[in-house]
Amino acid sequence: MDRTLAKTLIDVCEKRKKADLLIRNCRIVDVFSKTVFEGSISVIDGHFASFSDEIEADEVIDAGGRYVVPGFIDAHCHIESSHLSPAAFSDLIIPKGTTTVIADPHEICNVAGLDAMRYMLMASADLPLSVYYMFPSCVPATDSEHAGAVLLASDIDTMIDDERILGLGEMMNYPGIAAGLDFVLDKLECAYSRGKFIDGHAPDVKDRDLDAYSACRIKTDHECSTPEELRDRVRRGMYVALRQGTACKNVLDLLPGVNDDNLSRIMFCTDDCQCETIIDEGHISNGVNLAIGAGLKAEKALSAATLNAALCYDLRDRGAIAPGLKADFFICDSLEKIVPDEVFVSGKLTAKGGKILSPSSHIKPEKVSGMMNVKNFSSQRLVLPLEGDEARVIKIIPGSVVTENCIRKVSRDEKGNFTRDEKTDILKIASVERHKGTGNVGLGLIEGYGMKSGAVATSISHDSHNIIVVGTSDEDMERAVNELISTGGGVTIIQKGKVLMTHPLEIAGLMTDESAQVVYDTLREMHEIAYEKLGVNRNIDPFMTLSFMALPVIPALKITDSGLFDVTAFAFTSVNP
Amino acid sequence: MDRTLAKTLIDVCEKRKKADLLIRNCRIVDVFSKTVFEGSISVIDGHFASFSDEIEADEVIDAGGRYVVPGFIDAHCHIESSHLSPAAFSDLIIPKGTTTVIADPHEICNVAGLDAMRYMLMASADLPLSVYYMFPSCVPATDSEHAGAVLLASDIDTMIDDERILGLGEMMNYPGIAAGLDFVLDKLECAYSRGKFIDGHAPDVKDRDLDAYSACRIKTDHECSTPEELRDRVRRGMYVALRQGTACKNVLDLLPGVNDDNLSRIMFCTDDCQCETIIDEGHISNGVNLAIGAGLKAEKALSAATLNAALCYDLRDRGAIAPGLKADFFICDSLEKIVPDEVFVSGKLTAKGGKILSPSSHIKPEKVSGMMNVKNFSSQRLVLPLEGDEARVIKIIPGSVVTENCIRKVSRDEKGNFTRDEKTDILKIASVERHKGTGNVGLGLIEGYGMKSGAVATSISHDSHNIIVVGTSDEDMERAVNELISTGGGVTIIQKGKVLMTHPLEIAGLMTDESAQVVYDTLREMHEIAYEKLGVNRNIDPFMTLSFMALPVIPALKITDSGLFDVTAFAFTSVNP
Repeated sequence: MDRTLAKTLIDVCEKRKKADLLIRNCRIVDVFSKTVFEGSISVIDGHFASFSDEIEADEVIDAGGRYVVPGFIDAHCHIESSHLSPAAFSDLIIPKGTTTVIADPHEICNVAGLDAMRYMLMASADLPLSVYYMFPSCVPATDSEHAGAVLLASDIDTMIDDERILGLGEMMNYPGIAAGLDFVLDKLECAYSRGKFIDGHAPDVKDRDLDAYSACRIKTDHECSTPEELRDRVRRGMYVALRQGTACKNVLDLLPGVNDDNLSRIMFCTDDCQCETIIDEGHISNGVNLAIGAGLKAEKALSAATLNAALCYDLRDRGAIAPGLKADFFICDSLEKIVPDEVFVSGKLTAKGGKILSPSSHIKPEKVSGMMNVKNFSSQRLVLPLEGDEARVIKIIPGSVVTENCIRKVSRDEKGNFTRDEKTDILKIASVERHKGTGNVGLGLIEGYGMKSGAVATSISHDSHNIIVVGTSDEDMERAVNELISTGGGVTIIQKGKVLMTHPLEIAGLMTDESAQVVYDTLREMHEIAYEKLGVNRNIDPFMTLSFMALPVIPALKITDSGLFDVTAFAFTSVNP
Repeated sequence: MDRTLAKTLIDVCEKRKKADLLIRNCRIVDVFSKTVFEGSISVIDGHFASFSDEIEADEVIDAGGRYVVPGFIDAHCHIESSHLSPAAFSDLIIPKGTTTVIADPHEICNVAGLDAMRYMLMASADLPLSVYYMFPSCVPATDSEHAGAVLLASDIDTMIDDERILGLGEMMNYPGIAAGLDFVLDKLECAYSRGKFIDGHAPDVKDRDLDAYSACRIKTDHECSTPEELRDRVRRGMYVALRQGTACKNVLDLLPGVNDDNLSRIMFCTDDCQCETIIDEGHISNGVNLAIGAGLKAEKALSAATLNAALCYDLRDRGAIAPGLKADFFICDSLEKIVPDEVFVSGKLTAKGGKILSPSSHIKPEKVSGMMNVKNFSSQRLVLPLEGDEARVIKIIPGSVVTENCIRKVSRDEKGNFTRDEKTDILKIASVERHKGTGNVGLGLIEGYGMKSGAVATSISHDSHNIIVVGTSDEDMERAVNELISTGGGVTIIQKGKVLMTHPLEIAGLMTDESAQVVYDTLREMHEIAYEKLGVNRNIDPFMTLSFMALPVIPALKITDSGLFDVTAFAFTSVNP
C-alpha cells in the first residue's frame, strides 16, 4: 500500500472518482469469516475498492449472482515440475484460478545455481501470475550425488534481500538441523537476519526432532501424510500445506485431521505438478475440489487455499476479496465444484473458460540452456559386474516416490556382468553426471518398471538432475543418453537404436518454452509409446517414476551418479549384497 | 530468532544440553488447534524448547496436571488509564496473566508529545511485561480542543522506526480518512513506508466509509459494539478486538457475532482500564472469563487472547506454547474460570497467587512531570452568562462515554449568569487549558452527576487532558483547579474550600509511580468520599465520567477548553440553545 493508492481507493469509495470496474450482483466468498454474502465489487488501479453497488465505474458487469472467489495461492510448488517456463506455467494455471505461487526453484538451481535463481526471477517478473520464491536451502540436496551447483549461506546472502524472495526454501536437511550443523544454521541465519521465512520438509520427523525443527522457526511443512503428523506440526506452530500434486497426493489422507479449530493453519499446495495433471485435474483447484467433495465446507477450503497462505507468507496485499487488496479473483457458477470461469488478475480479465486470453512473453533462458556437460560416456560405462547371483534391487512402489530395498536373484553373463532375464522385471538403471563433466556413472538395478525392450532417459531426476536412464540393453541406454546430450536435455524413448520420440527441455534440461498444450500432447504420446511399444508398467508414470529414482533423501534405496544409496542407512551401498 | 538461540534450542531438544527448566505433567493449551494435550514443557534462554519429558533440566517442576496457558496479549490499551507508570502497570497485570501489551500512549503524548513517547519507551524497556507501542495517530485528537502537543507525520517519522513501535495508533480521524485529508494520509504513509501496521477506531463507521477506511489497510478495530459491526469489519479483513475495560465493556455484546469461522480474526483488549478494575476483575483475563462464562469454549477464547493478537501484530516470537517461542505463560487450575497462579515471563517465575514476586524499578519521569501550565485562572473565569432560562446541557448516560445533547430549564442569578438550582441535577462543568498557558476556559452544564456540594477536578480528561472540573460552587471549583496545579496534576475532591482528598498524578498529570495497591486504596477512598460526602450519583464513576466529558470525538455533546462541542454536527455550539 502507498499513499497514492490509498487516496485513490478512498476517492472511489467516497464517489469522488470512478472505479475502473464494477461487478454487481455477486455472491462474494468472504474467506475471513468463511461465508458468502451478496454484494458488488469494484476495482481501481488493480485493487478492490468497495462492496457497494453505488460505486460509479468505467465498466460495469453483472455477475448474475455467481460466486466471486479470491485467486488461489499455491503455498509451495516447483515450477520446474510442470516442464514449463514460468511464462507458460502462468498461462496454464491462471485459467485454473491460481494467481499467486510460492515457488522454490530448487530443481533448476541444482542445475545452474545463482544463474538459475536470476533466470527464474527475471522470467516471472512481468507475468499475470504473481511468483514469489523461497531460496532453495538444499543445493545440493545431499552430499551423495553431484549436482550442478553448491549454494551456501554466502550465496543465499547475495540474493535473499530480493523482495520477491520470501525466505529460505524447504529445509530438507532435517538430520542437519537435528545435528545442529554449522553450514545449515548459517543458512537459517540468512532468513533470521532479514525477518524472512523458512519452509519445512520433514517427512516422518517427530517428537524431540520435530521440536528442534520447529524451534528453529521452520514455519511450514507440506510433507505430512497422516492426520497425526498434521496435528503434531500445527501444535508446534507450523502451517501445514495439504499437497495434491502429480505423484504426491495427500489431501484426502490429511483431511480427517482438519477441523474448524485448526483450519487457520492449513494451506494447499501442489509441490510437484506436471502440466498433464494441471490440464486434466486442475491446479490448487484440484486439491480444493477434493476437499469439498470429501465434505469440507467450500468456504473453509477456499479460506485455506487463499487467505491462509497469504497470512503464512505475510503477503499483506492479497488473499481475500476486501477493500485495499489486490484484485485477483475468479467467477464461478458453483461452490460444490469450483470451476473458475472468468479469472481476473489485478482487476483485469485474464482468462475465461479455462483459456488464457493473451499468452505471456517468454524470457530467453540464455545462461540456463545447453546444460549437458557429459564426459567419457559410452555403453562401456554401463557394464555392471556382479559378485554372485543375488543383487540389491530398487523396487518401485507404484504411486509413491518411496522405494524398497530388495535382494533378488539375477542372471549374469559369462564375464559375471548383469544380464537381463526376460522372465523377471529387473532392469539396469544408470545415473549419468551431466553438470561438471566428471564422467561419473552410477549403476543399479530396478524392479517394477515393466519395460520389455528399449530404453527411456530423462534429464529430470530429482534433485541433482543428472541423466537417468533405464533400459533393456546397454546400447539403447547409450543411445538415449546421447540423444539428450544433443537436445540439451529432455525426455527420450529409444528402441533398437532408434529414437521413437524426444521431448526437448532446453531450459536447464528441465523446462521448455513450449506451451502447456504442446508439452501435454507430446508427453501423452510418449506415455502411450512407453506403455505400448516398450511395455512399461501402466501403473506407473514412465518418466516421473525415473525422475524420483535418484532422490537420495526419500527412502529406501536410490541411484545416484556415485552409485546406489541406502537412504535408511544414509550411506552408499553396493549392488552386491 | 537468531542462530545462537536456534543452536541452543536444538541442542536441548537433542539432549546435548540441559534446559533451564522442565515442567512435567502439564495440560498444555494448544492455541493453534484450540485444544489441550498432556505433555511437558521445557525452557532454555527464555524460550520453549520441547514438549518431551525426556529433556534434562537444571530445575524440574511437576505441574500436577494443571493447565499451562500462553501469556495473554492485550491488543490495544492505554497504560495511562491505569493511572500507573509502566513499571507499576507491569507489576499489576503480569500476575493477571497478561505478558504482552500493544499500548497506544495517546494520552501522555497529548500532554508531552515526543518527550512522552520517549519516556514511555524508556520506562517500559526493561520490564517483565513486553510493551509494544503504536505511535499515536491523532495528537491532538481534534482541532476542537487544545492539547499539549501536535504530532504530525514529520514527528512520527522521527520515531516510528523503533522496533518496539509496531505502527500507527488508533486512527480516530475517520472523517479525515473519508475526506482523504493530506495530513492524515501523510501519517498513514509513515506506516506504509515501513511495512508497519495501523490500528483503527471506527465506531459507527459503515458501508462505503468503512470500505474507504479498511482500504487504507487500517487493520484493527476495538470500537465495535454490535455483532453486525464486528461482521462488517472482519469481512473487510480487519481484526476486531473485543474490549472489556473499565468504562467500555463490549465482550458480551459482541460474542453472539463470534463463531468458529471468524474466530481467527478476533482478539481481546482492555483499551482504558483503571487499576481498580484490574485488581477487582482482572485484565485480559476478565474479558476471557466473561466469554467463557457466556459459552465460548475456553481454548477458543484463549486463542483469541494470545495467538490472534500475535499474528495480527506479527509478533513472531510469542502467542503460544511451542518450541522456539518466548516462554511467557501461566499455570492455572481450571479452564472454566481462568485464574493465573504461577506466571512465567521468559521462563522465569515472575508472579504467584496474584502477586508480583519482585517489584519493577521505576524510571524517573524527568521531562514529563510538573506539567501544569495554567495562566490567568480564577473563579471569575467560571462565570457562565445565559441568554434565557433554557440551556444546552450535557446529559450523562451511566455506563457509557456517549452523552446526550439536551435542552433544560435552568436558573439564572440577577446578572443573568447560571446559578445552581438544588432541585435539579444540573451542575457547572469547565475545561481549563493546562498545557500552553493559553488561559482558555470552556464552560458548560452537565446533568446526571448528582453532586450536592463541593467540586471534583481531574487532570485526566480525554484526549487533551486539560483540567476538567465540576462543582456546585465556583469557589470550590477554583480551589480544585488550584490544588491540581500545585500537585502537578491528579484527581481532587473539594468541599467548602477544603481539600477532602487528592490523588496526585505526577507523571504528566496522568500517572503515578505509586503501586497499584496505593492507587486502588486512594481512589476507593475518594470514590466513597465523592458518593458519601458530595452525593455523586452512585451509578457513575465520579472521576472517569468526568474524564470522558471532554472527548470531542464521541457523541453527542462534550466540553473542551474552547467551549461546548456538538460532536454530531462536529462543530462548536453554545450553552444558549
